[in-house]
Amino acid sequence: MSTQTVKAFGTEAPTADLKQLSIERREVTAKDVEIDILYCGVCHSDLHTARNEWGGTVYPNVPGHEIVGRITRIGNEVSKFQVGDMVGVGCMVDSCRECESCKEGLEQYCEAGNTGTYNSHDKHLNIQTFGGYSERVVVDEDFVLRVPENLNLAAAAPLLCAGITTYSPLRHWNVGPGKKVGIVGIGGLGHMAVKLASAMGAEVVVITTSASKVEDAKRLGADRVVLSTDAEQMKENAGSLHFILDCVSAQHDINSYLSLLRRDGSLTLVGAPEHPLPVAAFSLISSRRTFAGSMIGGIAETQEMLDFCGKHNITSDIEMIAIQDINKAYERLLKSDVKYRFVIDMASLKN
Amino acid sequence: MSTQTVKAFGTEAPTADLKQLSIERREVTAKDVEIDILYCGVCHSDLHTARNEWGGTVYPNVPGHEIVGRITRIGNEVSKFQVGDMVGVGCMVDSCRECESCKEGLEQYCEAGNTGTYNSHDKHLNIQTFGGYSERVVVDEDFVLRVPENLNLAAAAPLLCAGITTYSPLRHWNVGPGKKVGIVGIGGLGHMAVKLASAMGAEVVVITTSASKVEDAKRLGADRVVLSTDAEQMKENAGSLHFILDCVSAQHDINSYLSLLRRDGSLTLVGAPEHPLPVAAFSLISSRRTFAGSMIGGIAETQEMLDFCGKHNITSDIEMIAIQDINKAYERLLKSDVKYRFVIDMASLKN
Repeated sequence: MSTQTVKAFGTEAPTADLKQLSIERREVTAKDVEIDILYCGVCHSDLHTARNEWGGTVYPNVPGHEIVGRITRIGNEVSKFQVGDMVGVGCMVDSCRECESCKEGLEQYCEAGNTGTYNSHDKHLNIQTFGGYSERVVVDEDFVLRVPENLNLAAAAPLLCAGITTYSPLRHWNVGPGKKVGIVGIGGLGHMAVKLASAMGAEVVVITTSASKVEDAKRLGADRVVLSTDAEQMKENAGSLHFILDCVSAQHDINSYLSLLRRDGSLTLVGAPEHPLPVAAFSLISSRRTFAGSMIGGIAETQEMLDFCGKHNITSDIEMIAIQDINKAYERLLKSDVKYRFVIDMASLKN
Repeated sequence: MSTQTVKAFGTEAPTADLKQLSIERREVTAKDVEIDILYCGVCHSDLHTARNEWGGTVYPNVPGHEIVGRITRIGNEVSKFQVGDMVGVGCMVDSCRECESCKEGLEQYCEAGNTGTYNSHDKHLNIQTFGGYSERVVVDEDFVLRVPENLNLAAAAPLLCAGITTYSPLRHWNVGPGKKVGIVGIGGLGHMAVKLASAMGAEVVVITTSASKVEDAKRLGADRVVLSTDAEQMKENAGSLHFILDCVSAQHDINSYLSLLRRDGSLTLVGAPEHPLPVAAFSLISSRRTFAGSMIGGIAETQEMLDFCGKHNITSDIEMIAIQDINKAYERLLKSDVKYRFVIDMASLKN
């Protein structure tokens, strides 16, 4: 299969800094589009994978799955896109397309395993997939999303992971008017969840350990803020919420959040704490509560989310960086020192 | 309020044996029925409460909430029952009747707290409620159930707690034809769950640590048995079940059971292990699974369950004992040495 050499930024070992690399990408095949990457968001998964913190990283690794860019070439069977279209690519670039999950549009739960945008097996080249920290990417049109024209492109990039990861469970658990929704953890994911749940018409309650986040939570769209470190406030809000989206990746006490749910309420985890979370049986049994998890979203739902964001003019709060600053950005990410998402201006790679 | 003295069996301290006591019950008021208790099932909760293992036990304590008997008197406003009717009383004898849960027929989740059949506050006499280890009980007709005539009365008694505790979640999570349902823990609750899920038309898979239970599980109605101690069997069944009812009260590894669920599957706990159960985020997130809890069932649903059992001729597998053997029975219960429920022949108290 013919390939092209592409400039990228990646790492060759768990403890090595990211640096400029050359990678091979396939030339456009019949159903592919080639995208000139303009912006790429920085997700905590990028750092986990670059440093092999989840195991299984194949080096060199080029992270990045919040990709926005312009189509530069299309294959001869491409029907959905044209050269010049402004598009996005998220966490997946392929799936089996035959299993029950794929047929239901839930490619993220593909039973054969979806093809991640980076560090998955690339069936075309029989190597690992390379992500968005690069000049260009070639993707099957079925995994390419249309980005609404009215959105700021750089700030739209994080919608491709942080946006869909929070939008999908909010929809699945029927968040909307008349529902009281708690959001735990105001970071890259959580700040999107506040904006989205608010636009869906729910009453949004941010639950945070940090008094310093109260004003910002309200600016993002929270109707109320509950300080989880204040036992009195937690007691006052016990049994009050229909749904909680838990965006915390660190260890935390799930039971205190479960106590905020009404009967039949659900708390859904989208962060992935490293160690198991202890759940008291009584937290669930006493009010038929559920503790659930959710992972990104399907392709059709990702388009639905982008269109929703276009309609409601929702993007991420971002801090733009040059690709040469990615190692510093990772260090700041570890300290949660970003409001709320780093986005790489990929022009910096071309210079 | 006028009262009557009734013979009962109970305990006066956490470490004391149960023995014969006299208790006061109210005389029948306008909406009450008086029931001559014929049989009373022995639930593990009886033992926990008698020994104050959950805290909050008020002594003397008279356990028993799987009550079957015959109506001997009715108040002048009773409209649903007549003297001579064969009836049952389960875990609740009252609730606030005004909150959202009560109005929805989910009295077990009454926001003011339901009135338990024993060890709750009796608003009539301003003392603790006394359970079914007694000659007679006086209960508001709204909390009295009709027992189908075709059922063996003694074997029907456990339906009032073990039956409804398993029936309610099986219904709530839509168990029926086309669904693969796992039952974990074949004891008082679990053996009922196998019978009920099978009668509902589901494919029933018993998951047990004990090879000795395989034959009995099939006799109860299981289509298949998976040995959870056999890694190969667990792996073969990964991702295969729509729903799991977890009837285990001891500590156990929830994550290994969660792995058996399909995408969007639920594992619901009806046992109440003493310590929190560690749940790995990935167990939930990777397939949008839920971990839930459920507590008994509402009054209308309890009647529905009894009628279902009447139609399908379902009762508990029981071992009958005299009330004088209750302390020995508790010791055997602690060793799971019963197939599958002790039921007290209350005639033994009258002798």
